Amino acid sequence: MNDDFRQFAKVPPKGWNSWDSYGASVREEEVKRNADYMSAHLKQYGWQYITVDIQWYEPTADSSKYHDFTPLLMDGYSRLLPDPNRFPSAANGNGFKSLADYIHHLGLKFGIHIMRGIPRQAVHHASSIKGTDKTARDIALNNICPWNSDMYGVNVDLPEGQRYYDSLMELYASWGVDFIKCDDIAHSVIYKGTHKKEIEALRKAIDRTGREMVLSLSPGPAPVENGALLRQTANMWRITDDFWDEWPLLLNMFDRAEKWSPISRPGNWPDCDMLPLGHIGIRSVDGPGGNRQTRFTKAEQKTMMTLWSITQSPLIMGGELTDLDDWTTSLLTNKELLNMDDQIIEKYQTHRDKNVIVWYASSPANQYHALFNISDGDLSLPASKVSELGIPLNGHDIWKNGDVSISANQPVRIGSHDVYLIKNADN
Amino acid sequence: MNDDFRQFAKVPPKGWNSWDSYGASVREEEVKRNADYMSAHLKQYGWQYITVDIQWYEPTADSSKYHDFTPLLMDGYSRLLPDPNRFPSAANGNGFKSLADYIHHLGLKFGIHIMRGIPRQAVHHASSIKGTDKTARDIALNNICPWNSDMYGVNVDLPEGQRYYDSLMELYASWGVDFIKCDDIAHSVIYKGTHKKEIEALRKAIDRTGREMVLSLSPGPAPVENGALLRQTANMWRITDDFWDEWPLLLNMFDRAEKWSPISRPGNWPDCDMLPLGHIGIRSVDGPGGNRQTRFTKAEQKTMMTLWSITQSPLIMGGELTDLDDWTTSLLTNKELLNMDDQIIEKYQTHRDKNVIVWYASSPANQYHALFNISDGDLSLPASKVSELGIPLNGHDIWKNGDVSISANQPVRIGSHDVYLIKNADN
Amino acid sequence: MNDDFRQFAKVPPKGWNSWDSYGASVREEEVKRNADYMSAHLKQYGWQYITVDIQWYEPTADSSKYHDFTPLLMDGYSRLLPDPNRFPSAANGNGFKSLADYIHHLGLKFGIHIMRGIPRQAVHHASSIKGTDKTARDIALNNICPWNSDMYGVNVDLPEGQRYYDSLMELYASWGVDFIKCDDIAHSVIYKGTHKKEIEALRKAIDRTGREMVLSLSPGPAPVENGALLRQTANMWRITDDFWDEWPLLLNMFDRAEKWSPISRPGNWPDCDMLPLGHIGIRSVDGPGGNRQTRFTKAEQKTMMTLWSITQSPLIMGGELTDLDDWTTSLLTNKELLNMDDQIIEKYQTHRDKNVIVWYASSPANQYHALFNISDGDLSLPASKVSELGIPLNGHDIWKNGDVSISANQPVRIGSHDVYLIKNADN
Amino acid sequence: MNDDFRQFAKVPPKGWNSWDSYGASVREEEVKRNADYMSAHLKQYGWQYITVDIQWYEPTADSSKYHDFTPLLMDGYSRLLPDPNRFPSAANGNGFKSLADYIHHLGLKFGIHIMRGIPRQAVHHASSIKGTDKTARDIALNNICPWNSDMYGVNVDLPEGQRYYDSLMELYASWGVDFIKCDDIAHSVIYKGTHKKEIEALRKAIDRTGREMVLSLSPGPAPVENGALLRQTANMWRITDDFWDEWPLLLNMFDRAEKWSPISRPGNWPDCDMLPLGHIGIRSVDGPGGNRQTRFTKAEQKTMMTLWSITQSPLIMGGELTDLDDWTTSLLTNKELLNMDDQIIEKYQTHRDKNVIVWYASSPANQYHALFNISDGDLSLPASKVSELGIPLNGHDIWKNGDVSISANQPVRIGSHDVYLIKNADN
Repeated sequence: MNDDFRQFAKVPPKGWNSWDSYGASVREEEVKRNADYMSAHLKQYGWQYITVDIQWYEPTADSSKYHDFTPLLMDGYSRLLPDPNRFPSAANGNGFKSLADYIHHLGLKFGIHIMRGIPRQAVHHASSIKGTDKTARDIALNNICPWNSDMYGVNVDLPEGQRYYDSLMELYASWGVDFIKCDDIAHSVIYKGTHKKEIEALRKAIDRTGREMVLSLSPGPAPVENGALLRQTANMWRITDDFWDEWPLLLNMFDRAEKWSPISRPGNWPDCDMLPLGHIGIRSVDGPGGNRQTRFTKAEQKTMMTLWSITQSPLIMGGELTDLDDWTTSLLTNKELLNMDDQIIEKYQTHRDKNVIVWYASSPANQYHALFNISDGDLSLPASKVSELGIPLNGHDIWKNGDVSISANQPVRIGSHDVYLIKNADN
Repeated sequence: MNDDFRQFAKVPPKGWNSWDSYGASVREEEVKRNADYMSAHLKQYGWQYITVDIQWYEPTADSSKYHDFTPLLMDGYSRLLPDPNRFPSAANGNGFKSLADYIHHLGLKFGIHIMRGIPRQAVHHASSIKGTDKTARDIALNNICPWNSDMYGVNVDLPEGQRYYDSLMELYASWGVDFIKCDDIAHSVIYKGTHKKEIEALRKAIDRTGREMVLSLSPGPAPVENGALLRQTANMWRITDDFWDEWPLLLNMFDRAEKWSPISRPGNWPDCDMLPLGHIGIRSVDGPGGNRQTRFTKAEQKTMMTLWSITQSPLIMGGELTDLDDWTTSLLTNKELLNMDDQIIEKYQTHRDKNVIVWYASSPANQYHALFNISDGDLSLPASKVSELGIPLNGHDIWKNGDVSISANQPVRIGSHDVYLIKNADN
Repeated sequence: MNDDFRQFAKVPPKGWNSWDSYGASVREEEVKRNADYMSAHLKQYGWQYITVDIQWYEPTADSSKYHDFTPLLMDGYSRLLPDPNRFPSAANGNGFKSLADYIHHLGLKFGIHIMRGIPRQAVHHASSIKGTDKTARDIALNNICPWNSDMYGVNVDLPEGQRYYDSLMELYASWGVDFIKCDDIAHSVIYKGTHKKEIEALRKAIDRTGREMVLSLSPGPAPVENGALLRQTANMWRITDDFWDEWPLLLNMFDRAEKWSPISRPGNWPDCDMLPLGHIGIRSVDGPGGNRQTRFTKAEQKTMMTLWSITQSPLIMGGELTDLDDWTTSLLTNKELLNMDDQIIEKYQTHRDKNVIVWYASSPANQYHALFNISDGDLSLPASKVSELGIPLNGHDIWKNGDVSISANQPVRIGSHDVYLIKNADN
Repeated sequence: MNDDFRQFAKVPPKGWNSWDSYGASVREEEVKRNADYMSAHLKQYGWQYITVDIQWYEPTADSSKYHDFTPLLMDGYSRLLPDPNRFPSAANGNGFKSLADYIHHLGLKFGIHIMRGIPRQAVHHASSIKGTDKTARDIALNNICPWNSDMYGVNVDLPEGQRYYDSLMELYASWGVDFIKCDDIAHSVIYKGTHKKEIEALRKAIDRTGREMVLSLSPGPAPVENGALLRQTANMWRITDDFWDEWPLLLNMFDRAEKWSPISRPGNWPDCDMLPLGHIGIRSVDGPGGNRQTRFTKAEQKTMMTLWSITQSPLIMGGELTDLDDWTTSLLTNKELLNMDDQIIEKYQTHRDKNVIVWYASSPANQYHALFNISDGDLSLPASKVSELGIPLNGHDIWKNGDVSISANQPVRIGSHDVYLIKNADN
């Protein structure tokens, strides 16, 4: 049984994605700017993916709002192409080859977003499918994405349907793509679930290219019942609808992460979505909207980074990297935290009540305990309570970067929405 | 408050529809043939509507199966037109005018089927909308019918969206259409319910024509919770998914009819769907499929006719009229039954157990009791049991066309799936 | 078919119920005090029912909170009896006979609340069932009310199960009860719906007494799909969960009322629940809780009274009558409003957008238009908009008690959550 | 974090349970007879648990049907006791001590079934709770099992609620119980899910005894979303409603097993329910009912044994052991199959279409491929198809107990509902 693809993502992928800052409208110079910054300042901490999100083929895209039924750039085989006005190096049908080269030269990896399916304009114009005598009309299904009008589903029970996905992955591999984020596939509101057959077709198509392209599936929440299928086909998949800088969404992630924890393993990473940190919303109006610094408090940012890392979610930064301040940088370069994300081999929630949630994780060398204050007030927990929650009184406080030793009459204080994260070395 | 439209259907409409026999593929000569027959043999019993069902604008239609994404005949204003190959009188953009005239001359009324929305081909080609400077692209919504690929929904919150529906009804009124069966509107599986706004737009558009066009909504099951809206907008609406000649579907209709009985009133008729009687499936492969005589037993046919009539469902014959045999004709020309359908003013189920269901209805002049044997064996009910079920021992047996008087030691015998229907005159 | 029971409530019942003020703990003197007040001040306006709500058989009841598994007062036939400590006239097994007499002498009617089923204590003690040789153990079902631990369901397919309900109604009729509010029967959260068989058993049991006892079913929301059954068995049924003085609940009632409007008719009244007006929460801690004046603004109180009346909901006052102030009294004694509630024969919602909802009703003599401002700001609607909403510019303003005539350049002003209610006489 | 309990069931438990043969009515001599047989004939193959299923405390139990509200045997602390008429060694309050001793002396382990909660009779009589001054009335919750009337839920947020569960496990440990099958806890139809808090209370209570008692949770289907909780608390849990000898139930198990495969690991075994093999239904009338030999064909029996083993379900025999025939014995003593069940460390479905399902599993030493024919006809698969499904052409056929080597022009034949199971040694 072939699960070699799990090797493409031995640790949870870490990178940057254009959506949280630029919506559907990112431009080549913005992508390069963020890649340059990552290479210079973050690469050494394990950050490596630079991903262009949705609608790089849409000439009029200007925010996170879509222009329904707008004509898209397409080649003769019903495959979408980057718009040269937004991506000058894509002129003359070059696709993303040059941009990928640029990013590779920085020592990084290049990702693109795609939508499940085949362009509707190809279907209504009966465009060709590479290597077949069928047209887009013959392989399309009458099913759609409910929130974007670009594509129809593809009937992969037909050899020509599989061939279409093959031809897509062939093209992307030829560009040098390293990471495919496929959308409208992990969960559909109107079709109540996962588009399983098209996921399997994607897996086959990627494997046939021979190129190590990480497969990331969106949107969420993917149903936990599909965990077995997802483990056999994808490197990561979204367990949540779009995530933004709002506490209720962060609080809700604890539930989702708990449900998925038994399914996570190397090469198969349940994904809590991008990190809306630092300067975001530059041309995106989604979520709470607005060109802004993240609305999360510092406590909430630590909580998010801890939850994502202790559950081994991929870490995909959403904010503009060139605008990073010291605080945000400190979150992205916390070596102990990133090691935890990379090295743990088991993790699960051990306690939840109305005030606190406790997670435990272990790596071959260490044990980790995270104590989250989910209440709206500060908490002062006596040592006895900390012990009762299964948390050792001595250890290394990862966020304070110092050893702690709690005596019997000394409480642990955790601010509202903040976290206490302790590492213990096995002996 | 305008509910004048209820006058368009003072009694439950009775007619013929092409679907059960010809699927999406009926041709002009077949329509005329059935109209001729109805005029000659059934009109005198109250039958009057002749309806061309789905896809009269699809040149390649050949059965009840749709050809996804096929080009359709359309005028310059994004309005579909009958295909002249199938409807020769529609040549030169004449639409259904000639066919409607023909049917009117027979003393009958003419109906057509339409799909909710605007053709996708109009949207992807940005075709014009009559009386506006917008195009189909501007008023379309990214929502679809899950089982047919012809149309997108229309945004009727835009004046141009309403104007599109106005322009449609204007065209149909100019042809002389008397009956509009609008599909993909009363219930959508993927959108969980009724497309309310487009129903309201249709109501306005019809009222603006000044023509008395009956409005019939499909498919079912329309949710009972939308009964209030449906009563204010439509003359009839489907309470069931497609109905075919299978006992489980007929048995199931008792449930549906029971739920809807309080909502039914003159001009607002919950619709149990077409009557798959006689010769059906000629070019339709839906349901159990096959070119066939109805698979219902005679008992089941009586049960169906009784249930439809005592709940005042519209009666729309599905079989080819020119192939009617004596038995089937007797079902369609039972004067007492048809009177019940037209004249009752209250009706409801009074009893249900695992063997029998009892319905009661009353007209200004009569009371009706129907005793259905839903069990798989014959039943012999003693007079005492009949009385206990609230059914008088004396009366007129509508199916036997004779008076009955049950004595104490004489049981009523009802075959499996058969019905006993008694009329009593008030005195 | 016997629907004589519809005569028991020719107009929507109007009365007082102890729940909103006293929860499960009302005492005899409080009931009498409210009856005295109603007789003196409200009877002339049509108010007539005085109802003792839940747990009059529970000796330790002291608020709206239940004491799970507490022993209850019961007779030898598994029938609950009023606690003489709370109802002194019930001593010596007299039941509610004396209290009913007292209320009848005031020219009013007497109602009691009961729970579906048979006391669990009777079941676990195998108590007798009147007129049978079975015990409570033999007729009980293993089903419960999810929010109260007093009863088990009854198997009314057994003759002894029906006999138990007969014996209950026999007892209540002998006391002189005029109104039965049966709870845990119209909707069950855990059993997903209506306890249909026990409703039918209750109908039979009441009819067998020969006494005109109004049957009211709780809690809600009863499913609209059960409308046909409810019309054949009950005089009123709850269409909502418990209603309290909170705007979101009131706003939500518009939806519910709209769905039920086609089902309502004389003798069958969908019920929006008690009116939490005036002084409430005296010993009830439900809903927002607290011994208080209603938290509804005056505008909201008018909106509630209008919605209840124009949809012909029963009007059951929840506040302590002896504490009525002039404002609240004016709501309960608005003759025009109460006439509308009694006399209209059709009513439905004609428009809804994010700011306004419009209802229309007609009686043999009058037409009514209600324009509700559901927005959180004041509205000023030009005459043209009022006309477009189908509301005449001239008429009688029921809340201002004066005629109005709106000229073209004069807007109608409606405060946030307030209502404009116009009556027009047919001529 | 304490997950020591996973050591209690290092391999999927194998044993016998009284339900499939004796329903709620098994007697001591029957239990001993099956234990004797297991010890003599099956123990050497890994079979070791002998479990007394539901209602050993119910004196009148005589089949799989329950006698609602019947008095049960109980000690002074609200704890149920075995009925001495059915279990003579339980006389004088000895409980199951003697029976457990007997089974231990045979080299086997002893299991009992319990219902979640506290006896209703204890609640309505306010019986004592050991080690507390509260009564059953104080700790009971108004929630029930929908299919059995014995118990109420327990409020384990109260210390006395936890104490009750502690006192239960204390008693069972003192008897020498090795296996607790707790029912009405893994899934409740009326409460939509898992009773999580009471599962956690059980885990604590067992751990506090210091005795290695396997915890098995019923009924199913437990929701996959609760997998993380179940892995931290239980050794096995039902993933299906009651399983019987009917093909649709067996076919359906493929779905369930697929969903749960990523959650299964040593000490945490998703449970496909008992094996209805051999002579069953002796005093059970559940499922298809009847005192009978299993209705599964031999092919289906092989399919069941293969699916249970390749997914590492516990194997709990339901048929009377002393009536085993050679065929059935061969199923229970197939060493290769039992080794697969014990030794595999990964397993998942790799293919499913309308005719075949393929599973793969691997142990440290071997790889396994199972090819199930789920169609209603025999299949003949060419070697090329077998290879395409990822199944090697050479290997050891476990059911035929011989090596196979398929040549290019030799098809693999699999009868309807049968299975082809191949083992390959890693080299």
